[in-house]
Amino acid sequence: MECEYFEKLNNQEFGDLIGETKYWLIILAPDQRNLGTCVVALKREEIELSALNPDEWADLYNTVQKLENAVKKAFKATMFNWACLMNSSYLQDPPTPFLHWHFIPRYKSSFVFQGKTFEDPCFGRSTMQDRGRSFKVSEELKNKIKMEIIKYLEI
Amino acid sequence: MECEYFEKLNNQEFGDLIGETKYWLIILAPDQRNLGTCVVALKREEIELSALNPDEWADLYNTVQKLENAVKKAFKATMFNWACLMNSSYLQDPPTPFLHWHFIPRYKSSFVFQGKTFEDPCFGRSTMQDRGRSFKVSEELKNKIKMEIIKYLEI
Repeated sequence: MECEYFEKLNNQEFGDLIGETKYWLIILAPDQRNLGTCVVALKREEIELSALNPDEWADLYNTVQKLENAVKKAFKATMFNWACLMNSSYLQDPPTPFLHWHFIPRYKSSFVFQGKTFEDPCFGRSTMQDRGRSFKVSEELKNKIKMEIIKYLEI
Repeated sequence: MECEYFEKLNNQEFGDLIGETKYWLIILAPDQRNLGTCVVALKREEIELSALNPDEWADLYNTVQKLENAVKKAFKATMFNWACLMNSSYLQDPPTPFLHWHFIPRYKSSFVFQGKTFEDPCFGRSTMQDRGRSFKVSEELKNKIKMEIIKYLEI
């Protein structure tokens, strides 16, 4: 799967591209503490949410629905956190213009995928309170996570 | 300003109602560490973002634009964090169905309003890393913050 704009995002280390809609890229994040964590990035340069155009906003709705649905089916996620922060973008002047959303699936119960148990010890609280814990997955497992989401993504 | 549904939200302690669009309430949050921090709450019960209908989603776009614009004009905010988390909602079974967004203005420079200096020491990072700091404002100052946002809200 390729997307010309995705190449531009390389330095952002958002992760591995798993799909795209008309205006958004769906990218599997490197940190899989919360199984299925993704970044949803706009396919053009922009710095703030209120500058999206109506078509991009409508397509974001489409993307939210498809991704929530896919990760529910793939990993039985209980619910999802969505956040457009752009904090680190503003440490540069002018700001880094890669508008993106953090999509973090949350799990009331642990979930076993490919023999590995994924937990969400901060369920009911912010994952920001859980910064000490890391969960590196192998390339092989990462690819299986990607394929499992793609299976249900319907885009 | 009154809204029947806002009464239902009383136990959520979202704050003081400052305006409403067709489908969303704009509420000034009690914590004004980041000047202009609001909650944007859906005017009906719902637990997840993907269950919004297209009209509610389109009206959220309208709300994002009006609120960002107003807080930029009122307090010269640099940028904004938006997050739909719903974490604590899921500590109850069934979840508390008050779908809402956290709207946190971020400031590269301090801003003086009504003689009080508001800082954002975590600019460029998450406000979650700043949990120790609190910023209680008086009722009088809170009302002035509300009026300043309302002045530019254009709804």
